Amino acid sequence: MANRHAFWMLRFTSWNRFHYNARMKTVNIILMGYGRVGQAFLRMAGEKRALLEDRHDLHLQFSTILELRGALHFPRPLSPDSILKDLSLVQSFRMSQYWRPGFDLVSALDKSAPGVLVDCTPSKAGNAMPESGYLHQAFERKWHVVTANKGPLVADLRGLVSKAKQNTVALKISGATAAALPTVDVGFYSLAGTRVYRIEGILNGTTNYILTRMSGGADYRDALKEAQEKGITEPDPSLDLEGWDTAFKLLLITNTVCDTDFTLDDVKVEGIMNMPGHLIREGREPHQALKLLGIFSREQEQPYLQVKPSILDSAHPLFGVNDTNKGITFFTDTMSTVTVTGGKSDPRGAAAALLKDIINIYR
Amino acid sequence: MANRHAFWMLRFTSWNRFHYNARMKTVNIILMGYGRVGQAFLRMAGEKRALLEDRHDLHLQFSTILELRGALHFPRPLSPDSILKDLSLVQSFRMSQYWRPGFDLVSALDKSAPGVLVDCTPSKAGNAMPESGYLHQAFERKWHVVTANKGPLVADLRGLVSKAKQNTVALKISGATAAALPTVDVGFYSLAGTRVYRIEGILNGTTNYILTRMSGGADYRDALKEAQEKGITEPDPSLDLEGWDTAFKLLLITNTVCDTDFTLDDVKVEGIMNMPGHLIREGREPHQALKLLGIFSREQEQPYLQVKPSILDSAHPLFGVNDTNKGITFFTDTMSTVTVTGGKSDPRGAAAALLKDIINIYR
Repeated sequence: MANRHAFWMLRFTSWNRFHYNARMKTVNIILMGYGRVGQAFLRMAGEKRALLEDRHDLHLQFSTILELRGALHFPRPLSPDSILKDLSLVQSFRMSQYWRPGFDLVSALDKSAPGVLVDCTPSKAGNAMPESGYLHQAFERKWHVVTANKGPLVADLRGLVSKAKQNTVALKISGATAAALPTVDVGFYSLAGTRVYRIEGILNGTTNYILTRMSGGADYRDALKEAQEKGITEPDPSLDLEGWDTAFKLLLITNTVCDTDFTLDDVKVEGIMNMPGHLIREGREPHQALKLLGIFSREQEQPYLQVKPSILDSAHPLFGVNDTNKGITFFTDTMSTVTVTGGKSDPRGAAAALLKDIINIYR
Repeated sequence: MANRHAFWMLRFTSWNRFHYNARMKTVNIILMGYGRVGQAFLRMAGEKRALLEDRHDLHLQFSTILELRGALHFPRPLSPDSILKDLSLVQSFRMSQYWRPGFDLVSALDKSAPGVLVDCTPSKAGNAMPESGYLHQAFERKWHVVTANKGPLVADLRGLVSKAKQNTVALKISGATAAALPTVDVGFYSLAGTRVYRIEGILNGTTNYILTRMSGGADYRDALKEAQEKGITEPDPSLDLEGWDTAFKLLLITNTVCDTDFTLDDVKVEGIMNMPGHLIREGREPHQALKLLGIFSREQEQPYLQVKPSILDSAHPLFGVNDTNKGITFFTDTMSTVTVTGGKSDPRGAAAALLKDIINIYR
C-alpha cells in the first residue's frame, strides 16, 4: 500500500511538473567573454535556476561560451551546472572536451536556435573604439543582445538600436550603464511619460572612492594608492581618472532615456587628476562634498553633456553617495527629481544586471 | 506653382500621418473619480498627448468620467482637450451636456471597447475597507486597471492579481504605492532575478515633514500645526499619523516585489503620536535622524512587517530624505542595496504615476 501511494505521488509530481513546463520558455545563451564578469554570470545563472524557472518561467541553457581563439561549444545546449561541473574536472578552459579552437561568433550564432547573446567582453572604448559589427550580425540572425561592453554602444548606439528594432529583437544595456545601479530601466519604465530635462550622476566607483578619501583629508596620490592597493582600480585606471568611463555611461544613459543622439565628441570631459586646489579645499568643508559628476542638461537652449568635479551641498540627493557607491538623479517635468543610489559594484553585480535584462526581455 | 507645391506638401504630410498611425494604439479610458488626482490626470493626458503619440504610439481617449451618482459619458470617446474645453463652458461638472445621472461603472465598462480603468477614487482603507468587487468586474470585462486607490488593494491584492491574470489583463498599482517615487516597478523590473530580503521605506510625506521639523527642535504639536497650515496634511490626518498609510504601502510593495501573501493583520504598526522622549532627543543629535520607517524583513526565520519611528545614522541611504520627500531601500542578495528617493508628492505626481503605468501596459 505504501508503495502504491508513493507511486501515485510520483505520478502526481511528474504531472505537475509537466503541466508547469508548458509555460516555460527555454532560452539559448551564447556567453561571449569568460573573464570575471562572464564567469560570475555563468555561476549566477546556475544559482538562480530555481528562481528563474519558478517565478519567471525561464529555463536558460548555454550553447556556446566564446573566448579569444575559440569556444566551448555544446552541440546540445547545457545547463550552467553541467558546464561548471565539466570545467571543474579539467585544469584549464581549453582542456575541456567541448573546446573548439577557431570556433567564432558567427558559427555560434548559426549553430543554435536564436536566444540571447550575453556580451561580457572587456570594454576597449576610448581611442581604440571596437567595431560594433559583431552585434549587428547577432541581430540579423534574430538574437537578442544583453551587454556589459560599453565600447560598441558608445561607437554606434543609434545604429545598433535601429538594427535591433528592424529585426524585432532587443538590445539591453544595463550591464554597460552602471550595472546593478538601475539607470536606463528606471528612465525607461519608472519615468515613462515624463520629460527628463537634466541628469546628474556619480557613475564611476573608483573616482568616487578617491574623492571620498580626499574629502576626508587624504591627498590625491595617497588616495589613488589606497584604491590601487585595495584592488578597486582597473589595471590601467586612466579611463576612470580622466573621466572617460563616466562620459561613456552618461552618453549611453542620456541617449537611451532622453531619446537624443549625442556622440562622444559632444561630451566635455574633465577628470580628477589635476583638480584646482580650491575645489579640493571646498570639498573638505562640513556639509560639502566633492564628486565627479556626469551632467546632461537641456534646460537652456543649447543642451550639453559634461563630466566635471563638482561641489555638492548636503541637501543634494547624491551628497551621501560615498566610497565606491554610485548614484543618479533624474530631473523631470511631472515627477520632480527621482534619485537612485547603490547597487553592487563588482562582477557579481554586473552579472545580476545582465540576468535582469534577460528576464525583462522575456516578460 | 506655389499653390500646387502647397497641395503636394499637404498630401505628403497626410500620407506621413496615415503611415504613422498604422502603429498607433487607440486606448479607451474610464476615469473613476474626479477629485484632485482625477482632474490632474485628465489635464496631464492632454498635456502629454504629443509625447504619448510620438514616443509611445499611444492615443488616449476618454469614454467615461465617473463620479458619485453619475458620470460624464461620451458615446464617441473624446480627447482630454475636448473634454476640458467642454467643461470650461459650464459652471459645474453636472451641467455638462454629457452628464448622465445614475450612469455607473458597469454601464461604462459595457458601453465601450475595453481599455484602461483609471481608479482615482479616494482611499478609504482602515476600519471601513472598501469592496474590491468593482475591480473584479472590470477585469471580467477585459479592462486593464491602473489605480491610485489603496483600499481595495489592501483588502484583496491576491484576489485581484489572480483575477487580472485569469483575464490576461494588467493591474498596475504605482499610484497606490508612493506614486511618483518608483517602488513596485523598481522591484519588478530593476531588481528582477534578485532576492529582496529586506525593505526599509519612508513612505509617508506628512509624517516625514513633521519628524523633520521635530529633528530641527519643534515639538510634535507645533510641527503638526505647521503641516496643517501648509496644507500638507489630509483633512483627517490620523491614518498618516498612526502609521497606517505607511503600513498600507509597505504591505502592497512587499507582497508585489517579494511575491509574499501578508495581510494587514501581519503588520505591527506604531505611529508618531506618542513617541518616547528619548527617541525625539536622539533624533536631534548631529548625524542622526528620526524617521517613520516601514520595514519588511525575512532575514530571520520568522519574517515580519513593521511600521515604527526609528533612528537612522548619517550613513543610512535614507538619512537625507527630509520634509515631504519619500524614499525606499531594497536589500538584495546579488545587487546589494538599491535606494530610490524623491518623486513629486502631490496630485500631479500621482497623475504622472498613473500615466506611466498605462504606458508600461502597452509596451
